[in-house]
Amino acid sequence: MPPVQELDLVLDQVRTLLAQGQVEEAANLISALRPVDAADVVSALHPADGADVLEELDPADRAEVVEELEPEVGAGVLIELDEDERTDVANRLGVEALSELLDEMAPDDAADVLGELDERRVEAALSEMNQEDEVRELLEHDEESAGGLMIPHVVAFRQSMTVQQSIDFLRRNKPDEETSYYLFVTDDADRLIGVVSLRQLVVAEPHTRLGDIMNPNVIAADVGTDQEECARLLARYDLLALPIVDDDRKLVGVVTADDLFDVLEEEATEDIYHLANLDADEDVYDSIFRSSRRRLAWLFLNLPTAMLAAFVVSQFEDTTRVLPWVAAFAPIINGQSGNAGIQTLTLIVRSLALGEITLRDSWRTLTREAAIGVVNGIIFGVCVGLLGLLWQGSAVIGLVAGGAILLNLIVAALMGTIVPFGLRLINVDPALASGVIVTTFTDVMGSLCLYGLATVVLSRHYL
Amino acid sequence: MPPVQELDLVLDQVRTLLAQGQVEEAANLISALRPVDAADVVSALHPADGADVLEELDPADRAEVVEELEPEVGAGVLIELDEDERTDVANRLGVEALSELLDEMAPDDAADVLGELDERRVEAALSEMNQEDEVRELLEHDEESAGGLMIPHVVAFRQSMTVQQSIDFLRRNKPDEETSYYLFVTDDADRLIGVVSLRQLVVAEPHTRLGDIMNPNVIAADVGTDQEECARLLARYDLLALPIVDDDRKLVGVVTADDLFDVLEEEATEDIYHLANLDADEDVYDSIFRSSRRRLAWLFLNLPTAMLAAFVVSQFEDTTRVLPWVAAFAPIINGQSGNAGIQTLTLIVRSLALGEITLRDSWRTLTREAAIGVVNGIIFGVCVGLLGLLWQGSAVIGLVAGGAILLNLIVAALMGTIVPFGLRLINVDPALASGVIVTTFTDVMGSLCLYGLATVVLSRHYL
Repeated sequence: MPPVQELDLVLDQVRTLLAQGQVEEAANLISALRPVDAADVVSALHPADGADVLEELDPADRAEVVEELEPEVGAGVLIELDEDERTDVANRLGVEALSELLDEMAPDDAADVLGELDERRVEAALSEMNQEDEVRELLEHDEESAGGLMIPHVVAFRQSMTVQQSIDFLRRNKPDEETSYYLFVTDDADRLIGVVSLRQLVVAEPHTRLGDIMNPNVIAADVGTDQEECARLLARYDLLALPIVDDDRKLVGVVTADDLFDVLEEEATEDIYHLANLDADEDVYDSIFRSSRRRLAWLFLNLPTAMLAAFVVSQFEDTTRVLPWVAAFAPIINGQSGNAGIQTLTLIVRSLALGEITLRDSWRTLTREAAIGVVNGIIFGVCVGLLGLLWQGSAVIGLVAGGAILLNLIVAALMGTIVPFGLRLINVDPALASGVIVTTFTDVMGSLCLYGLATVVLSRHYL
Repeated sequence: MPPVQELDLVLDQVRTLLAQGQVEEAANLISALRPVDAADVVSALHPADGADVLEELDPADRAEVVEELEPEVGAGVLIELDEDERTDVANRLGVEALSELLDEMAPDDAADVLGELDERRVEAALSEMNQEDEVRELLEHDEESAGGLMIPHVVAFRQSMTVQQSIDFLRRNKPDEETSYYLFVTDDADRLIGVVSLRQLVVAEPHTRLGDIMNPNVIAADVGTDQEECARLLARYDLLALPIVDDDRKLVGVVTADDLFDVLEEEATEDIYHLANLDADEDVYDSIFRSSRRRLAWLFLNLPTAMLAAFVVSQFEDTTRVLPWVAAFAPIINGQSGNAGIQTLTLIVRSLALGEITLRDSWRTLTREAAIGVVNGIIFGVCVGLLGLLWQGSAVIGLVAGGAILLNLIVAALMGTIVPFGLRLINVDPALASGVIVTTFTDVMGSLCLYGLATVVLSRHYL
């Protein structure tokens, strides 16, 4: 057993390494210690940093260290671990140790951990927990709704209470850090009627009643509200927490800013990945075969559509044989139309996600994008046409290439608009798979326009 | 002048329309009123909602309504307006009215507004302002750094103060809502040495000294820290505000969660748009010609690279003439390699943005992505090869198509990794333009692999 001074030395080294971003090296130092000593060092770090280090350890070692942590610290570290590692630790711990950790967490965090375990283990852990009822309630709500994200059973205040009474109450009950930046005021039927911020409470005269300083225009969300919508409300109205109410406007919980920060980031990552044909939880630290399998699935999903474009081209073999330059224009027509389609698509997917446009704006958006397609098609078509004329020395070639890009930029604008609005209409996430659909259309239609125009216009000259 | 009851009626209607998302209809109701009455209605709304409605008005009407608002309300609404509309209003207001509004804002918000105006107007407004010095200081920092985002001159506390003294101080001075959720503790040299949350203050015994309850491991950022990095610190450590320090660790300001919420969203949008070749501030409500011009700029930027791919194909005219089926495989090879390249690129751009990987991970990431490229190349190559065999009835065609996709998926993986890391290395945002570079490479190399292999392998059989 290393003497205490030695552990202090390790802690200093670990802190220095972490400050330099050398997480792996810090983990190596810690993995050389006995679990009980490793736990000592990890306890001295911020939970987010402790979790970073633990993520680098062997799964079995990691669970052993977590088991040695004080339950309060262990709960903080566990919740900061990435989902895969967190689930692995939760599966390796004894049921008793696990439920002890879960009891130290806010109920919403405990529900997050349990949501990834198999049913028998969830039941076993819940039956040992003190906050079984609160967590069970959360597990019933959709994980991505306000109900699944909230801290339930938040303390409410009455408007007749004075500022001093409220402060005394808080002193006696010491509520959790994250739920206490707003005091929610309810009436006799537990309906939410106002809000007082902790700052208002502190600066108000002690004898003032909450009813006199509360803001009655309190912004609240329903238990069923999607987590992304909650995040937007919070961001829009500059709030630190969002009260959650049921159908009768009874206060049932609160969603806090720190959770919604994560939501905002997750949702953005999800959209970015979907637009690029990646799974939402793809990770640079996944195993090669896992990544390979998931990306192949997307590529195979695209294969039939790529084959469709290939089939279209193959129908024009005679044209290609006589006019091989047509094939040279294909990368320009298909590539640029794909780019234009993705421009339109991305703008619309993101604007839908941010709530800047809704289904009501579909017609206006479609005409706008179509107009841009026509304008850009004409300008770009003239340029590509001139390119054809100068490069191949033939006005007819210029006409074919320019005409193909004009037609296909309009197709790109239309499809880039119709696909995301269509997916939203049938309640599918617009970001999902729409990149594939749009580039398929531009590839197929681009080939059809280019080879088709070439065949029709030039058959008189050459065939 | 409509009687007061009538205005109340309009307000009710406006509220109902806004609740249904019918902002335009709400704006129509308001634009029918005299500016002074319109201001009355807007004052009764949440500033974020008031701004939404004002955005739909004619620019001249909008400025008139803002001018009629109480300065405190006007400041709240102005800061919630979209940047273009905000700048337009700020340019239409008299200098005196403008500086009155700016004085009602937090200095960081005032600096944001001034940052978009021309220099003479900025000087005129500043010279009329009470908080000229604070705002001037902020304007000196990079707009996207902690220094440009922070609220400067935040009140600091000494560790010898008691809880009750601190509460009394807050009651007397009533600091701004957004700066008051943490009490920052400094030493005699104004260096940051600890933090006490408002919640800790409220629940602590009145005679306790701040030094006894403060957390000495306070997480702070430097004035020069990038805003995105600030947002990540806040999200990672679940903070509501981030103290900003100078080189001597003196407390110079605080950045609050509500500002960083917006930063996180802006930065995500920026990355999404850049990956899709859109300008970061493209907007579905921009004029057609503005959007058209900016998107054309991106398409023209891509034109030379698309021409390069076209040039490569044109070099193989003899092959195309004899073996027109080669052109049919081009959409498959180019399309799928482009998809695979964008998969890799997107994963790496987003992981860099989220801080999950840094330049130090470049080699490990490159070998990982290359390995995925090889695995997927072999599997996909065999499938495309079989397709070639079955469709065209020739093993050699299968070999060419399969070999081309194998080679090009490896190129896609390498370029999807090298390009973003390379841009980061030279301090350019990895999201910027890298989509173009990667798909160019996959187009050019895909054409080269396909037509090249076809020419080499098949020349013995056919030519």
